[in-house]
Amino acid sequence: MKKITIIGAGLVGSLLAILLAKRGNKVNVYERRPDMRKATISAGKSINLALSDRGWKALQIAGIAEDIKKIAIPMRGRMVHDIEGKLNFLPYGKDDQAIYSVSRGELNCRLMSLAEQNENVRFLFNERCIDVDLKNASTSFENFETHKTSKIESDLVIGSDGAFSALRLSMQMKTDLFNYSQHYIEHGYKELLIPAKTNGDWALEKNALHIWPRESFMLIALPNMDGSFTCTLFFPFDGETSFANLKTEKQLVDFFNKNFPDVVPLMPTLAHDFFHNPTSSLVTVKCQPWNFEDKTLLIGDAAHAIVPFFGQGMNCGFEDCTVLNTLLDNHGDNWKNICNEFQQLRKPNSDAIADLALANFIEMRDLVADPQFLLRKKIEKTFHEKHPHKWIPLYSMVTFSDLPYSLALAEGKKQDKIMNEILQIDNINEKWNSKEIEDAILKQL
Amino acid sequence: MKKITIIGAGLVGSLLAILLAKRGNKVNVYERRPDMRKATISAGKSINLALSDRGWKALQIAGIAEDIKKIAIPMRGRMVHDIEGKLNFLPYGKDDQAIYSVSRGELNCRLMSLAEQNENVRFLFNERCIDVDLKNASTSFENFETHKTSKIESDLVIGSDGAFSALRLSMQMKTDLFNYSQHYIEHGYKELLIPAKTNGDWALEKNALHIWPRESFMLIALPNMDGSFTCTLFFPFDGETSFANLKTEKQLVDFFNKNFPDVVPLMPTLAHDFFHNPTSSLVTVKCQPWNFEDKTLLIGDAAHAIVPFFGQGMNCGFEDCTVLNTLLDNHGDNWKNICNEFQQLRKPNSDAIADLALANFIEMRDLVADPQFLLRKKIEKTFHEKHPHKWIPLYSMVTFSDLPYSLALAEGKKQDKIMNEILQIDNINEKWNSKEIEDAILKQL
Repeated sequence: MKKITIIGAGLVGSLLAILLAKRGNKVNVYERRPDMRKATISAGKSINLALSDRGWKALQIAGIAEDIKKIAIPMRGRMVHDIEGKLNFLPYGKDDQAIYSVSRGELNCRLMSLAEQNENVRFLFNERCIDVDLKNASTSFENFETHKTSKIESDLVIGSDGAFSALRLSMQMKTDLFNYSQHYIEHGYKELLIPAKTNGDWALEKNALHIWPRESFMLIALPNMDGSFTCTLFFPFDGETSFANLKTEKQLVDFFNKNFPDVVPLMPTLAHDFFHNPTSSLVTVKCQPWNFEDKTLLIGDAAHAIVPFFGQGMNCGFEDCTVLNTLLDNHGDNWKNICNEFQQLRKPNSDAIADLALANFIEMRDLVADPQFLLRKKIEKTFHEKHPHKWIPLYSMVTFSDLPYSLALAEGKKQDKIMNEILQIDNINEKWNSKEIEDAILKQL
Repeated sequence: MKKITIIGAGLVGSLLAILLAKRGNKVNVYERRPDMRKATISAGKSINLALSDRGWKALQIAGIAEDIKKIAIPMRGRMVHDIEGKLNFLPYGKDDQAIYSVSRGELNCRLMSLAEQNENVRFLFNERCIDVDLKNASTSFENFETHKTSKIESDLVIGSDGAFSALRLSMQMKTDLFNYSQHYIEHGYKELLIPAKTNGDWALEKNALHIWPRESFMLIALPNMDGSFTCTLFFPFDGETSFANLKTEKQLVDFFNKNFPDVVPLMPTLAHDFFHNPTSSLVTVKCQPWNFEDKTLLIGDAAHAIVPFFGQGMNCGFEDCTVLNTLLDNHGDNWKNICNEFQQLRKPNSDAIADLALANFIEMRDLVADPQFLLRKKIEKTFHEKHPHKWIPLYSMVTFSDLPYSLALAEGKKQDKIMNEILQIDNINEKWNSKEIEDAILKQL
């Protein structure tokens, strides 16, 4: 039984607290922000989350999947909105497969409350980490309200404090040979809202993730429990068509009328939301090592922040918890072995999902409206149904399995190569569903 | 006329102070360490520097090239030592071309003293930068001796504070969209010494850069004015053959006797140096942007630290000064334009030399002992002599020209492709110097 300090009471920190406390560890979770259960202030910058298989698996291991299912809405596919408002539904997988829309805030509140049911877990809020003494696993915090600083001794410090992790910064600044990169994409994002209809119903199909793909930018909408949709506009910061160039309400409304005509009537507070909500940036973080001896360990976004376009940020962080839990089964509390093996197992996979997430932005904003791409998806789906073990579409490997992300990335590249050749076959549009094409794919596998 | 704060009195900071002060700017240079002219303490971790054309050009512009030439020793080629101590001299370029060995400490002292001759320049030592207020170009320092902190207001803050720049850290922590990476290679380095002979002479050929290439590691030696050579062992941190595995004096001496037999008699203090000098790491740093508005600017290693294997770290930093000087000619003191254009001009080139420097480690430690590689060099040299404008060897483009590094990198890749094909020609060993081969290269250009 160890005394463990967790920095960050976000999704991963709260879930991890449950798993560690269940084993008898004494877990104190320090959070920079106030307790969001008491003062829920929307920052106007949440991308709704999509829970998929990897996330559910971790919640099941923690014994709380059923609790979370109550606040999750299944989305069975992408609903693509073209520029005239015409709809095209693309299922994510088989009929019973779905990803689940959850509000980040609501999920976080539940996880904290579930964690607090364990007497070994204590949350402390308004506590900003200002320094970590790596060698002694002791952490200094400053309280936002009292301005008092305190130094907390423990056996192990785990940083689940997100893309801008204070623990990681300490490791960057205080250790030699710490590899680190943070890379921003040229798009930012802005939260917008489609409220529920006056009768409380959803204004669009509830069980879908809505996409308005427009090549250099896109809008998405995910359903909430209260009938509303949280929308996110992914848009360049600078350039011809960009946040920098939408300055007036007229420019904004003209732009939306031209590009998202079916959405405008559903967004009564468009201009207010657009000009009041912050424009947020999207970063990929990679680093190595994730631990300092057996004293500190990074997990979730603190170790590997990714862009949201594969819907895997939280799922990958939750899978970290699953893997750590297995290592605790295997190694008892030999944290030196646990830390080393954890990074060895997870680093290739978090690198892979980072790359897949960047690539999926292209797919979402651009390809889902491309006939060639849609044909490819049809061919893959058909072949997968006939040969379910020989071909699992990349999206399914990532979303509806727990195959290592690195394997999914490698398989995906092989599939790309094969499908690029298949799509060059003469008259592929007519004979895509033929024995000839099936054989051609089989031959290449 | 501006008030400019320079952080870091290293090579680039001192040279830049001269160039800026010449134009009438008031320049204060704050340095973390003590004044090395008063208390020269060798840290035992200096790699000797090799001044080449780009460096000399900047020194000429500053009007101090002649002063520096006095402490520089020309090295006209690589002297390769094989495992039996046999020597092979590979000239760097034409007979009159050389790179120049200088001691970092000595060069730095001269640059500071030359800068101080200008009444607009003031150096302040023992002043560690603890914070930069980017918007107001105001910098906070803590004095190591008095422990007093001071806040210095200025029009512009320039960070020439090296690979672990405090200004860059402020930009990383306080601005959005700051792209950053630091990446270490798996080799560290250790300074060793070949002292002068008892009669004061150099123990090895003076006008050469000596290399003992051993594939997974290497030793180099550069001449000093006092008859000694500063040697550097580049060696893996971990693994079978590594710093971690050379623990006893016996292990060390056995290893040196086996791998560098001709060196051992020349290094009377080998064991002492090896076990007392620190093992240092080698990092590549890339970031963007290099400026915050017209208030702060990164330059030299602070903007783009590279590994030392092309001998271009200082030369690239000095070329930064040359470019900045030209921009000051063009833009007066419109620092907004200067900062933006500086990054635009230099970033592709510093990225290119970073990659070239990593690649040159392979060449130095491995290829210079490879007959195929030596044949390639001969073919290139011969062709270059016949067609000096059609083919400039990569090493010469980088070292003996001021062609943009990015162009050198691109040309180098083209040359690689052509030479790989040429080397596959039957009996190339016999006919490398023939009209047939000359024509074959011409055809591909």
